[in-house]
Amino acid sequence: MSTSAQIGVTGLAVMGRNLARNFARNGYTVAVHNRTVAKTNALVEEFGHEGSFVAAETAKEFVAALERPRRLVIMVKAGEPTDAVIQEFAPLLEPGDMIIDGGNAHFADTRRRERELRGQGIHFVGTGVSGGEEGALNGPSIMPGGSPESYESLGPMLEKISAKAADGAPCVTHVGPDGAGHFVKMVHNGIEYADMQLIGEAYQLLRDVAGYSPSQIADIFRTWNTGRLDSYLIEITAEVLSHVDAATGKPFVDVVEDRAEQKGTGRWTVQIALDLGVPVSGIAEAVFARSLSGHADLRAASRGLAGPTAQQLDEVDAAAFADRVEQALYASKIVSYTQGFHEITAGSDEYDWNIDLGAVASIWRGGCIIRAAFLDRIRAAYDTRPDLPSLLSDDTFAQEIAAAQDDWREVLVAATRQGVPTPGFSAALAYYDALRAERLPAALTQGQRDFFGAHTYRRTDREGSFHTLWGDDRSEVEA
Amino acid sequence: MSTSAQIGVTGLAVMGRNLARNFARNGYTVAVHNRTVAKTNALVEEFGHEGSFVAAETAKEFVAALERPRRLVIMVKAGEPTDAVIQEFAPLLEPGDMIIDGGNAHFADTRRRERELRGQGIHFVGTGVSGGEEGALNGPSIMPGGSPESYESLGPMLEKISAKAADGAPCVTHVGPDGAGHFVKMVHNGIEYADMQLIGEAYQLLRDVAGYSPSQIADIFRTWNTGRLDSYLIEITAEVLSHVDAATGKPFVDVVEDRAEQKGTGRWTVQIALDLGVPVSGIAEAVFARSLSGHADLRAASRGLAGPTAQQLDEVDAAAFADRVEQALYASKIVSYTQGFHEITAGSDEYDWNIDLGAVASIWRGGCIIRAAFLDRIRAAYDTRPDLPSLLSDDTFAQEIAAAQDDWREVLVAATRQGVPTPGFSAALAYYDALRAERLPAALTQGQRDFFGAHTYRRTDREGSFHTLWGDDRSEVEA
Repeated sequence: MSTSAQIGVTGLAVMGRNLARNFARNGYTVAVHNRTVAKTNALVEEFGHEGSFVAAETAKEFVAALERPRRLVIMVKAGEPTDAVIQEFAPLLEPGDMIIDGGNAHFADTRRRERELRGQGIHFVGTGVSGGEEGALNGPSIMPGGSPESYESLGPMLEKISAKAADGAPCVTHVGPDGAGHFVKMVHNGIEYADMQLIGEAYQLLRDVAGYSPSQIADIFRTWNTGRLDSYLIEITAEVLSHVDAATGKPFVDVVEDRAEQKGTGRWTVQIALDLGVPVSGIAEAVFARSLSGHADLRAASRGLAGPTAQQLDEVDAAAFADRVEQALYASKIVSYTQGFHEITAGSDEYDWNIDLGAVASIWRGGCIIRAAFLDRIRAAYDTRPDLPSLLSDDTFAQEIAAAQDDWREVLVAATRQGVPTPGFSAALAYYDALRAERLPAALTQGQRDFFGAHTYRRTDREGSFHTLWGDDRSEVEA
Repeated sequence: MSTSAQIGVTGLAVMGRNLARNFARNGYTVAVHNRTVAKTNALVEEFGHEGSFVAAETAKEFVAALERPRRLVIMVKAGEPTDAVIQEFAPLLEPGDMIIDGGNAHFADTRRRERELRGQGIHFVGTGVSGGEEGALNGPSIMPGGSPESYESLGPMLEKISAKAADGAPCVTHVGPDGAGHFVKMVHNGIEYADMQLIGEAYQLLRDVAGYSPSQIADIFRTWNTGRLDSYLIEITAEVLSHVDAATGKPFVDVVEDRAEQKGTGRWTVQIALDLGVPVSGIAEAVFARSLSGHADLRAASRGLAGPTAQQLDEVDAAAFADRVEQALYASKIVSYTQGFHEITAGSDEYDWNIDLGAVASIWRGGCIIRAAFLDRIRAAYDTRPDLPSLLSDDTFAQEIAAAQDDWREVLVAATRQGVPTPGFSAALAYYDALRAERLPAALTQGQRDFFGAHTYRRTDREGSFHTLWGDDRSEVEA
C-alpha cells in the first residue's frame, strides 16, 4: 500500500468518481474508497489507465494511503450520510488534516461541522461543486469555504482540476470561512432556478403569443446565444427545444410531462433569504412555479377557470415580439442576479465572511450551470466598485435596463391580457419598480400595524418611535 | 390561599393581562402570576373589581391555587422564554393537567413540547390567539391544538371568552392535535400580510394612477367596506388614511416612514410552505415587500433608475379605475386565501391533523385581524364541499373571479405601463393563469434538468422515468 496519494475521494457515485478521475487526469495520485468495495475496484479497472489511483478497501487503508497533511474529499449525500462519514473518518485523522465536503450541504450544517472539527485541529472545508457529472470530470466551478490555511494547501490542486474561464482564469476561489462556500453554491442554485424559470416564460410567450413552434423557438434561442444572453442554459434550451421525440415524431418538449422537480437548494435559497431579510422574489417565484407544476390534481381541477386565450401574432409582429421578449428576459435576468448577489452580501455580513462578489462572479464564468458571458460583466461591475449597493447601481446595467424596460413592460402587458403566466418576469419588474419608488405603501402598513397592534411607527420628519392613540383622541405619543 | 381558580395565567404583559381580565369578566376565578410580583399586584389593584382574581407570588402558590385538572395559560415570549416557563411549572403539575401556550410559537416547537410533556401525562395545548390587545380583552379568535381531552375541558371556557361571529357562533374550535393550532395561527398571519400588501397596492394605484388624495381614498375604502370586501383591515385602512397629522397638517400616511416591520410569522408561513411544496407566492411577495421597504440604502441608491411616471387620470376615468381596482383587489384576495388554505391542507395532510377547513374559516370570522364577511363564504364553500380541491374550485368564487378578471388584468396593465409596483396583484394573477394553464414550461425545465444533470423526466404518453442520451445519439432510455 502506497502512502503517497495527494488526495483521497470517498463516496464513488458518479460525482465522486468523476472528481477522482479529474484529479488523476491532472497528475495527482488519488486514493479512492467506497462503502462497497466493488465500486472502488470498478473505478480502478475501468479508468485506471487515466492516472494514478490507490484503491483502499477500508477507512484505515484509505487514511493511511494519504500523504500528510491529509486531503480527504467526501462525496456522499448531504445530511446524515455526511455526518456518518465524518464520524467514521475524523477519529483516524490528525491535526492539520483536511476533510473536504463536496456535496450539496446546507451551509448551517457546514458551519456546525467546521466548528466541531476545529476543536480536533481538523480543517473542514465545505465546498460547493457545480457543473454536474460532466463538470466534475472535465472541470467544475468550485466554491470552497473553510480556513485560509486549508486553501493554501488545497487551492493549487483545485485550480488545476477546475474549469477555466474564457480568459484562462481557474473557476475557483477561497470564498470565505466555514460555510461561505456552501452558502454561495446554494445561491448559485437559486439563481439557476430563476434563470430556468425566466427561460421557460420566454419560451411560453414565444409559443403562445408569438405562435412559434418549438424548433423555431430553438432557432431564436440560438440567435440570442450569440448576444448578451450567451450562456450554457440558453444553449441547452435550444438543444432541448429542437429535439424531436423519436417515438412520436412530436417536439420532445411536448411529450415531456410538465411537472418540474427540485432537490432543495432553490428552496433553501428562499428560506435563508427570508431569515436574512433579503427580497428574492424572482427566485421564490421560480421555486413556486416548480411546486405548482407538480400539483396535478389542483391543476386538473383548475383548467376550466375562466380566462383569455393567447392570440397568436402574424409573422412580422411575431418577430418584433421576439425581440421584446429578449429585452424582457435580459432585464429580468439582471434583477435575478441583483437579488442573488444581495443575498450573498447579506450572508457575508451576517457571518463575517468578507466575500469578494467580483471573485464569485468570476468563478461562475465557467464550469457551472449558470456560466454565461454576462458574469464577466458582473465581475467588472464589482471590480470597478466593490461597494456597489446592488447590481442595478452599476451604470452599464442601469442603462441596459433603462433601454429594455419599454419592451419589458409591453411583454408583460401582452402576457397579462392574454393569460400567459409570467410570475418571474412580473416579480422582477415589481422589484425594480419598488426599488426605484419614491414612496411605498409600507407607510400605510405601518399605520395599520400601529392601529391594530400598537406596533408604533417612525416619522419622516423626526427621530424616534411614535404611536397614535387610535382608540382615544388620536393624538400622538412618543413610544 | 384559595385553591378554586378555574384557570391561571402566567406572564402578565399586555396580552396576558387582558386575557386574564377576559376570563375574570366572564365569571371565572383566575389565578394570576408574573415573574415580577409588582405586575401581578398592579393587575389586581387596577382590575380586581372586574372579577375574581387570585394573585400568586410564586410558581408553587400559583399551581396550588388552581383546581384540578389544572389549566395553566402561559403568555410569554415565543422561543426560549416559553421553554423556561414550561421547565419551571411542569415539575409542579400532575397527570391530566394542561399547559396552554397562548404565545406565537412556531408549530414545530409546539409539536416538540407536546411530545415531551405527553410523557408526563401533561396536556400541552399550543393555542393561537389573534386579535391583539383589544381582542385578548374583549374576545379573540382562538385556535387551540393539543389533545381532544384537553379541548373537552378547555373548550367551554374558551368559547365563553372568544369573539362571536355575526351569527353568534364562538370563534374557537379544536383545530387539531399537537401543533395544529399554532400552524393555523401562523397561516392566519401569513394571509394577514398578504391582505395588507394587497390593500397597500390598491392604495398606491388609487393615489398614483387615479390621482386621489389619502382622504378621498379613505372614502373609497369606506364604500368598499359596505360590499364584499367588508373587513376589519379595510375598515381601519379608511381610518388610517383619513387621519391628519396634527403636527404638520399633512395626511398621516405621508409623515410615516415607509419602512414596514415584521415579527416573523409571515416569514414562517412562506418557509413552511416551501417545505410543504405549496406555492404561496402572494404571501411571499407581501413578506418581501416589507423587507424591501426596509433596505433604505438600497432604495436610496435606486431612486434614480429609469422608469415611467404615473399619469394621473381625470375625474371620470379615475372613478372607473377605482372600480377596477376593487375587482383586482377582490380577485387577488381570493387567490391569497386559496394559497393560505392550500398550506393548511398540506400541513394537515403532512401531520395527520385532520383539520376542518370550514371550521377554520368560521373561527376567523370574528376577533382576529383578518375577520371579514368574506370568511362566511369560504366557510360555506367548504361546508358545501369539504374536499374542495381549492377555493378556486368553488363555483361562486370561480364566477366572481371570472367576472373580475378583465378589470384585474387592466389594472395590472396600467400598473405595468406606469411603473407602479404591484407584486401582490401580479403574483396572484400569475398563480391564477398558471393553475388554469393547459401546459406549463415545466416540461422545458425537466428537459433542461435531464440535459445537464441526467435528472430524468416523465412522459405524457406512458408510465416510467426516462433519460435522453443528450451527449450521445440522443436516443431515449428508461431510467
